[in-house]
Amino acid sequence: MGKIFLSITMSLDGYSSGREITQKNPMGLSGQLLHQWLFDKKQKGDEEVALETFQNTGAVILGSRTYLTAIHGVWENQSPFPVPALVLSSKKIEPVAGFTIVNEGILRAVSQAKSIAKEKDVLVMGGVNTAQQFLYGDFLDEIHLHIAPILLGSGSRLFENGNKQITEFKKIKVIETPAATHMVLKAAGK
Amino acid sequence: MGKIFLSITMSLDGYSSGREITQKNPMGLSGQLLHQWLFDKKQKGDEEVALETFQNTGAVILGSRTYLTAIHGVWENQSPFPVPALVLSSKKIEPVAGFTIVNEGILRAVSQAKSIAKEKDVLVMGGVNTAQQFLYGDFLDEIHLHIAPILLGSGSRLFENGNKQITEFKKIKVIETPAATHMVLKAAGK
Repeated sequence: MGKIFLSITMSLDGYSSGREITQKNPMGLSGQLLHQWLFDKKQKGDEEVALETFQNTGAVILGSRTYLTAIHGVWENQSPFPVPALVLSSKKIEPVAGFTIVNEGILRAVSQAKSIAKEKDVLVMGGVNTAQQFLYGDFLDEIHLHIAPILLGSGSRLFENGNKQITEFKKIKVIETPAATHMVLKAAGK
Repeated sequence: MGKIFLSITMSLDGYSSGREITQKNPMGLSGQLLHQWLFDKKQKGDEEVALETFQNTGAVILGSRTYLTAIHGVWENQSPFPVPALVLSSKKIEPVAGFTIVNEGILRAVSQAKSIAKEKDVLVMGGVNTAQQFLYGDFLDEIHLHIAPILLGSGSRLFENGNKQITEFKKIKVIETPAATHMVLKAAGK
Protein backbone atom coordinates (compact mmCIF):
# COMPACT_ATOMS: atom_id res chain seq x y z
CA MET A 1 0.00 0.00 0.00
CA GLY A 2 1.15 3.52 -0.77
CA LYS A 3 1.97 6.29 1.67
CA ILE A 4 0.10 9.45 2.60
CA PHE A 5 2.28 12.52 2.20
CA LEU A 6 1.87 16.25 2.51
CA SER A 7 3.64 18.43 -0.05
CA ILE A 8 3.69 22.09 0.87
CA THR A 9 5.88 25.18 0.59
CA MET A 10 6.79 27.34 3.59
CA SER A 11 8.74 30.57 4.02
CA LEU A 12 11.59 30.79 6.53
CA ASP A 13 9.20 32.54 8.90
CA GLY A 14 6.76 29.65 8.58
CA TYR A 15 4.06 30.93 6.24
CA SER A 16 2.50 28.65 3.63
CA SER A 17 0.37 31.43 2.19
CA GLY A 18 0.23 35.20 2.43
CA ARG A 19 -2.65 37.10 4.01
CA GLU A 20 -5.76 38.12 2.08
CA ILE A 21 -6.27 35.10 -0.16
CA THR A 22 -8.45 35.94 -3.16
CA GLN A 23 -9.10 34.46 -6.59
CA LYS A 24 -6.65 36.96 -8.02
CA ASN A 25 -4.08 36.18 -5.32
CA PRO A 26 -4.71 32.48 -4.57
CA MET A 27 -1.55 32.33 -2.44
CA GLY A 28 -2.37 35.59 -0.66
CA LEU A 29 -0.43 38.85 -0.81
CA SER A 30 3.09 38.15 -2.07
CA GLY A 31 2.34 34.45 -1.60
CA GLN A 32 3.47 33.80 -5.16
CA LEU A 33 7.02 34.36 -3.85
CA LEU A 34 6.67 31.00 -2.11
CA HIS A 35 6.29 29.19 -5.42
CA GLN A 36 9.13 30.75 -7.37
CA TRP A 37 10.71 27.28 -7.39
CA LEU A 38 7.75 26.11 -9.51
CA PHE A 39 7.77 29.05 -11.88
CA ASP A 40 10.17 31.89 -12.69
CA LYS A 41 13.13 30.71 -10.62
CA LYS A 42 12.83 26.97 -11.22
CA GLN A 43 15.95 24.97 -11.91
CA LYS A 44 16.55 21.32 -12.78
CA GLY A 45 16.33 20.19 -9.16
CA ASP A 46 13.02 21.99 -8.70
CA GLU A 47 11.59 20.41 -11.85
CA GLU A 48 12.61 16.96 -10.65
CA VAL A 49 10.94 17.55 -7.30
CA ALA A 50 7.76 18.79 -9.01
CA LEU A 51 7.68 15.72 -11.27
CA GLU A 52 8.41 13.30 -8.43
CA THR A 53 5.46 14.67 -6.47
CA PHE A 54 3.09 13.04 -8.94
CA GLN A 55 5.25 10.12 -10.03
CA ASN A 56 3.67 7.58 -7.71
CA THR A 57 0.58 9.52 -6.68
CA GLY A 58 -2.82 7.90 -7.18
CA ALA A 59 -5.08 10.44 -5.50
CA VAL A 60 -4.98 13.99 -4.15
CA ILE A 61 -6.70 15.49 -1.10
CA LEU A 62 -7.17 19.25 -0.75
CA GLY A 63 -9.24 21.68 1.27
CA SER A 64 -12.39 23.40 0.06
CA ARG A 65 -10.93 26.89 0.38
CA THR A 66 -8.09 25.98 -1.95
CA TYR A 67 -10.53 24.36 -4.35
CA LEU A 68 -13.00 27.24 -4.35
CA THR A 69 -10.28 29.88 -4.68
CA ALA A 70 -8.45 28.18 -7.52
CA ILE A 71 -11.05 26.33 -9.59
CA HIS A 72 -12.69 29.32 -11.26
CA GLY A 73 -9.43 31.29 -11.08
CA VAL A 74 -5.95 29.96 -11.86
CA TRP A 75 -7.22 26.44 -12.64
CA GLU A 76 -9.71 27.79 -15.19
CA ASN A 77 -12.48 25.25 -14.38
CA GLN A 78 -10.24 22.25 -15.01
CA SER A 79 -8.44 19.94 -12.64
CA PRO A 80 -4.67 20.59 -12.69
CA PHE A 81 -4.08 17.08 -11.34
CA PRO A 82 -3.33 13.96 -13.41
CA VAL A 83 -5.28 11.82 -10.89
CA PRO A 84 -8.62 12.07 -9.05
CA ALA A 85 -8.80 14.72 -6.32
CA LEU A 86 -10.94 14.78 -3.18
CA VAL A 87 -12.06 18.07 -1.64
CA LEU A 88 -12.63 18.13 2.14
CA SER A 89 -15.65 20.32 2.76
CA SER A 90 -18.42 20.84 5.29
CA LYS A 91 -20.63 22.27 2.54
CA LYS A 92 -22.29 20.79 -0.51
CA ILE A 93 -20.40 21.86 -3.62
CA GLU A 94 -21.02 20.80 -7.21
CA PRO A 95 -17.48 20.08 -8.40
CA VAL A 96 -16.00 20.09 -11.89
CA ALA A 97 -14.76 16.83 -13.45
CA GLY A 98 -11.78 15.32 -11.68
CA PHE A 99 -12.91 16.41 -8.21
CA THR A 100 -15.10 14.68 -5.64
CA ILE A 101 -16.44 16.48 -2.59
CA VAL A 102 -16.12 14.65 0.74
CA ASN A 103 -18.53 15.97 3.37
CA GLU A 104 -17.95 13.21 5.92
CA GLY A 105 -14.62 14.37 7.30
CA ILE A 106 -10.95 13.51 7.13
CA LEU A 107 -11.21 9.78 7.94
CA ARG A 108 -13.64 9.25 5.10
CA ALA A 109 -11.46 11.29 2.74
CA VAL A 110 -8.44 9.18 3.64
CA SER A 111 -10.25 5.88 3.11
CA GLN A 112 -11.73 7.05 -0.21
CA ALA A 113 -8.36 8.36 -1.38
CA LYS A 114 -6.68 5.07 -0.46
CA SER A 115 -9.22 3.03 -2.33
CA ILE A 116 -8.77 5.23 -5.42
CA ALA A 117 -4.96 5.26 -5.17
CA LYS A 118 -4.77 1.49 -4.62
CA GLU A 119 -1.05 0.65 -4.27
CA LYS A 120 -0.07 4.23 -5.12
CA ASP A 121 0.41 7.22 -2.80
CA VAL A 122 -2.05 9.82 -1.54
CA LEU A 123 -0.88 13.42 -1.83
CA VAL A 124 -2.25 15.94 0.65
CA MET A 125 -2.03 19.53 -0.56
CA GLY A 126 -2.95 22.67 1.29
CA GLY A 127 -4.38 24.85 2.30
CA VAL A 128 -2.87 25.34 5.68
CA ASN A 129 -6.03 24.31 7.51
CA THR A 130 -6.18 20.97 5.72
CA ALA A 131 -2.43 20.44 6.12
CA GLN A 132 -2.74 21.02 9.88
CA GLN A 133 -5.58 18.53 10.22
CA PHE A 134 -3.35 15.89 8.65
CA LEU A 135 -0.24 16.97 10.56
CA TYR A 136 -1.79 17.06 13.97
CA GLY A 137 -4.09 14.11 13.38
CA ASP A 138 -0.95 12.06 12.70
CA PHE A 139 -2.17 10.85 9.31
CA LEU A 140 1.06 11.49 7.40
CA ASP A 141 3.81 9.03 6.53
CA GLU A 142 5.98 11.78 5.06
CA ILE A 143 6.13 15.55 4.78
CA HIS A 144 7.60 16.99 1.61
CA LEU A 145 8.52 20.46 2.81
CA HIS A 146 9.75 23.06 0.35
CA ILE A 147 11.38 25.93 2.23
CA ALA A 148 11.54 29.18 0.27
CA PRO A 149 14.34 31.55 1.33
CA ILE A 150 12.04 34.46 2.08
CA LEU A 151 10.37 36.18 5.00
CA LEU A 152 6.70 36.86 4.27
CA GLY A 153 5.97 38.64 7.54
CA SER A 154 2.29 37.69 7.58
CA GLY A 155 -0.13 35.07 6.32
CA SER A 156 -1.04 31.56 7.47
CA ARG A 157 1.57 29.63 9.37
CA LEU A 158 1.93 25.94 8.61
CA PHE A 159 3.04 24.96 12.12
CA GLU A 160 0.59 27.01 14.15
CA ASN A 161 -2.19 25.96 16.49
CA GLY A 162 -0.46 22.64 16.77
CA ASN A 163 -0.39 20.37 19.70
CA LYS A 164 2.69 20.92 21.81
CA GLN A 165 4.16 17.56 20.91
CA ILE A 166 7.84 17.47 20.04
CA THR A 167 8.64 15.68 16.80
CA GLU A 168 12.08 14.75 15.55
CA PHE A 169 12.37 14.05 11.83
CA LYS A 170 14.71 12.01 9.71
CA LYS A 171 15.51 13.76 6.46
CA ILE A 172 15.04 11.01 3.87
CA LYS A 173 16.13 13.26 1.02
CA VAL A 174 17.14 16.90 0.60
CA ILE A 175 17.43 18.75 -2.70
CA GLU A 176 18.89 22.23 -2.54
CA THR A 177 18.15 24.86 -5.19
CA PRO A 178 18.37 28.68 -5.13
CA ALA A 179 14.58 29.02 -4.77
CA ALA A 180 13.92 26.22 -2.28
CA THR A 181 15.27 23.63 0.09
CA HIS A 182 13.24 20.51 -0.66
CA MET A 183 13.10 18.13 2.30
CA VAL A 184 11.43 14.75 2.54
CA LEU A 185 10.78 14.31 6.25
CA LYS A 186 9.76 11.22 8.14
CA ALA A 187 8.95 11.38 11.83
CA ALA A 188 11.54 9.42 13.81
CA GLY A 189 9.99 6.14 14.84
CA LYS A 190 7.66 5.98 11.85
CA MET B 1 35.79 46.11 7.37
CA GLY B 2 34.18 42.91 8.50
CA LYS B 3 30.54 41.95 8.39
CA ILE B 4 27.92 41.70 11.11
CA PHE B 5 26.26 38.31 11.10
CA LEU B 6 23.72 36.49 13.20
CA SER B 7 24.29 32.80 13.84
CA ILE B 8 21.29 31.04 15.33
CA THR B 9 19.51 27.69 15.28
CA MET B 10 15.78 27.35 14.59
CA SER B 11 13.37 24.42 14.53
CA LEU B 12 11.15 23.80 11.50
CA ASP B 13 8.32 25.44 13.40
CA GLY B 14 10.45 28.52 13.98
CA TYR B 15 11.59 28.24 17.59
CA SER B 16 15.12 29.24 18.60
CA SER B 17 14.60 28.17 22.20
CA GLY B 18 12.09 26.12 24.12
CA ARG B 19 9.80 27.54 26.76
CA GLU B 20 10.81 27.89 30.43
CA ILE B 21 14.45 28.88 30.10
CA THR B 22 16.37 28.20 33.33
CA GLN B 23 20.01 27.76 34.32
CA LYS B 24 19.47 24.01 34.17
CA ASN B 25 17.73 24.27 30.78
CA PRO B 26 19.46 27.26 29.15
CA MET B 27 17.77 26.47 25.83
CA GLY B 28 14.38 25.95 27.47
CA LEU B 29 12.40 22.72 27.67
CA SER B 30 13.67 20.30 25.00
CA GLY B 31 15.62 23.23 23.54
CA GLN B 32 18.77 21.10 23.60
CA LEU B 33 17.25 19.23 20.64
CA LEU B 34 17.98 22.35 18.56
CA HIS B 35 21.70 21.99 19.14
CA GLN B 36 22.16 18.31 18.42
CA TRP B 37 24.26 19.41 15.42
CA LEU B 38 26.78 20.85 17.92
CA PHE B 39 26.80 17.86 20.23
CA ASP B 40 25.56 14.29 20.09
CA LYS B 41 24.57 14.20 16.42
CA LYS B 42 27.35 16.30 14.99
CA GLN B 43 29.02 15.22 11.77
CA LYS B 44 31.93 16.58 9.76
CA GLY B 45 29.80 19.25 8.05
CA ASP B 46 28.47 20.46 11.39
CA GLU B 47 31.98 20.69 12.85
CA GLU B 48 33.14 22.72 9.88
CA VAL B 49 30.22 25.11 10.28
CA ALA B 50 30.92 25.49 14.00
CA LEU B 51 34.59 26.21 13.32
CA GLU B 52 33.85 28.66 10.51
CA THR B 53 31.59 30.65 12.80
CA PHE B 54 34.63 31.83 14.73
CA GLN B 55 37.22 31.68 11.95
CA ASN B 56 37.03 35.38 11.07
CA THR B 57 35.15 36.64 14.11
CA GLY B 58 36.67 39.47 16.14
CA ALA B 59 33.87 40.22 18.59
CA VAL B 60 30.61 38.72 19.84
CA ILE B 61 27.37 40.43 20.85
CA LEU B 62 24.78 38.65 22.99
CA GLY B 63 21.77 39.49 25.11
CA SER B 64 21.77 39.81 28.88
CA ARG B 65 19.31 37.00 29.40
CA THR B 66 21.57 34.59 27.55
CA TYR B 67 24.57 35.84 29.51
CA LEU B 68 22.87 35.66 32.90
CA THR B 69 21.38 32.23 32.22
CA ALA B 70 24.58 30.67 30.95
CA ILE B 71 27.45 32.32 32.78
CA HIS B 72 26.97 30.71 36.19
CA GLY B 73 25.46 27.61 34.55
CA VAL B 74 26.78 25.85 31.44
CA TRP B 75 29.63 28.32 30.94
CA GLU B 76 30.89 27.76 34.50
CA ASN B 77 31.93 31.40 35.08
CA GLN B 78 34.19 31.51 32.04
CA SER B 79 33.72 32.98 28.60
CA PRO B 80 33.19 30.23 26.00
CA PHE B 81 34.30 32.64 23.26
CA PRO B 82 37.82 33.00 21.84
CA VAL B 83 37.24 36.77 21.39
CA PRO B 84 35.80 39.65 23.48
CA ALA B 85 32.03 39.55 23.98
CA LEU B 86 29.62 42.43 24.55
CA VAL B 87 26.42 41.95 26.53
CA LEU B 88 23.44 44.17 25.66
CA SER B 89 21.72 45.05 28.93
CA SER B 90 19.52 47.73 30.43
CA LYS B 91 20.86 46.84 33.90
CA LYS B 92 24.24 47.19 35.53
CA ILE B 93 25.92 43.81 35.72
CA GLU B 94 29.42 42.97 36.96
CA PRO B 95 30.67 40.64 34.24
CA VAL B 96 33.35 37.96 34.36
CA ALA B 97 36.52 38.35 32.29
CA GLY B 98 35.98 38.33 28.55
CA PHE B 99 32.62 40.12 28.75
CA THR B 100 31.77 43.83 28.66
CA ILE B 101 28.30 45.12 29.51
CA VAL B 102 26.82 47.69 27.14
CA ASN B 103 24.03 49.74 28.73
CA GLU B 104 23.74 52.32 25.96
CA GLY B 105 21.82 50.25 23.44
CA ILE B 106 22.33 48.42 20.21
CA LEU B 107 24.02 51.22 18.21
CA ARG B 108 26.68 51.61 20.88
CA ALA B 109 27.16 47.84 21.06
CA VAL B 110 27.65 47.69 17.29
CA SER B 111 30.19 50.51 17.23
CA GLN B 112 32.10 49.04 20.18
CA ALA B 113 32.08 45.59 18.62
CA LYS B 114 33.33 46.95 15.30
CA SER B 115 36.17 48.82 16.94
CA ILE B 116 37.19 45.65 18.81
CA ALA B 117 36.84 43.42 15.76
CA LYS B 118 38.72 45.82 13.47
CA GLU B 119 38.79 44.20 10.03
CA LYS B 120 37.23 41.02 11.39
CA ASP B 121 33.53 40.11 11.69
CA VAL B 122 31.04 40.70 14.48
CA LEU B 123 28.98 37.68 15.49
CA VAL B 124 25.53 38.28 16.96
CA MET B 125 24.23 35.38 19.04
CA GLY B 126 20.89 34.98 20.72
CA GLY B 127 18.79 35.15 22.57
CA VAL B 128 15.77 35.60 20.39
CA ASN B 129 15.12 39.11 21.67
CA THR B 130 18.61 40.30 20.75
CA ALA B 131 18.46 38.48 17.40
CA GLN B 132 15.17 40.23 16.58
CA GLN B 133 16.58 43.66 17.42
CA PHE B 134 19.35 43.08 14.91
CA LEU B 135 17.05 41.46 12.33
CA TYR B 136 14.38 44.11 12.35
CA GLY B 137 16.77 47.00 12.85
CA ASP B 138 18.45 45.93 9.60
CA PHE B 139 21.89 45.67 11.19
CA LEU B 140 22.85 42.34 9.65
CA ASP B 141 24.96 41.65 6.57
CA GLU B 142 24.31 37.91 6.80
CA ILE B 143 22.19 35.42 8.69
CA HIS B 144 23.71 32.04 9.42
CA LEU B 145 20.59 30.00 10.02
CA HIS B 146 20.85 26.43 11.27
CA ILE B 147 17.53 24.67 10.77
CA ALA B 148 17.05 21.63 13.00
CA PRO B 149 14.63 19.01 11.61
CA ILE B 150 12.34 19.06 14.62
CA LEU B 151 9.06 20.55 15.75
CA LEU B 152 9.37 22.06 19.23
CA GLY B 153 5.72 23.10 19.51
CA SER B 154 6.43 25.96 21.91
CA GLY B 155 9.13 28.41 22.94
CA SER B 156 10.46 31.65 21.47
CA ARG B 157 10.04 32.15 17.74
CA LEU B 158 12.91 33.75 15.88
CA PHE B 159 10.73 35.42 13.24
CA GLU B 160 7.97 36.75 15.47
CA ASN B 161 6.85 40.27 16.22
CA GLY B 162 8.67 41.39 13.13
CA ASN B 163 7.77 44.16 10.88
CA LYS B 164 5.65 42.97 7.98
CA GLN B 165 8.37 43.60 5.45
CA ILE B 166 8.98 40.95 2.84
CA THR B 167 12.59 39.88 2.47
CA GLU B 168 14.01 37.68 -0.24
CA PHE B 169 17.34 36.03 0.49
CA LYS B 170 20.16 34.73 -1.61
CA LYS B 171 21.60 31.54 -0.18
CA ILE B 172 25.34 32.15 -0.26
CA LYS B 173 26.13 28.69 1.06
CA VAL B 174 24.17 25.66 2.26
CA ILE B 175 25.59 22.70 4.15
CA GLU B 176 23.26 19.81 4.72
CA THR B 177 23.72 17.34 7.58
CA PRO B 178 21.31 14.95 9.33
CA ALA B 179 20.97 17.27 12.34
CA ALA B 180 20.78 20.63 10.54
CA THR B 181 20.47 22.54 7.30
CA HIS B 182 23.08 25.28 7.60
CA MET B 183 22.25 28.29 5.44
CA VAL B 184 24.21 31.48 4.95
CA LEU B 185 21.61 34.03 3.90
CA LYS B 186 22.09 37.48 2.46
CA ALA B 187 19.12 39.74 1.83
CA ALA B 188 18.67 40.33 -1.91
CA GLY B 189 19.97 43.76 -2.74
CA LYS B 190 22.54 43.79 0.11
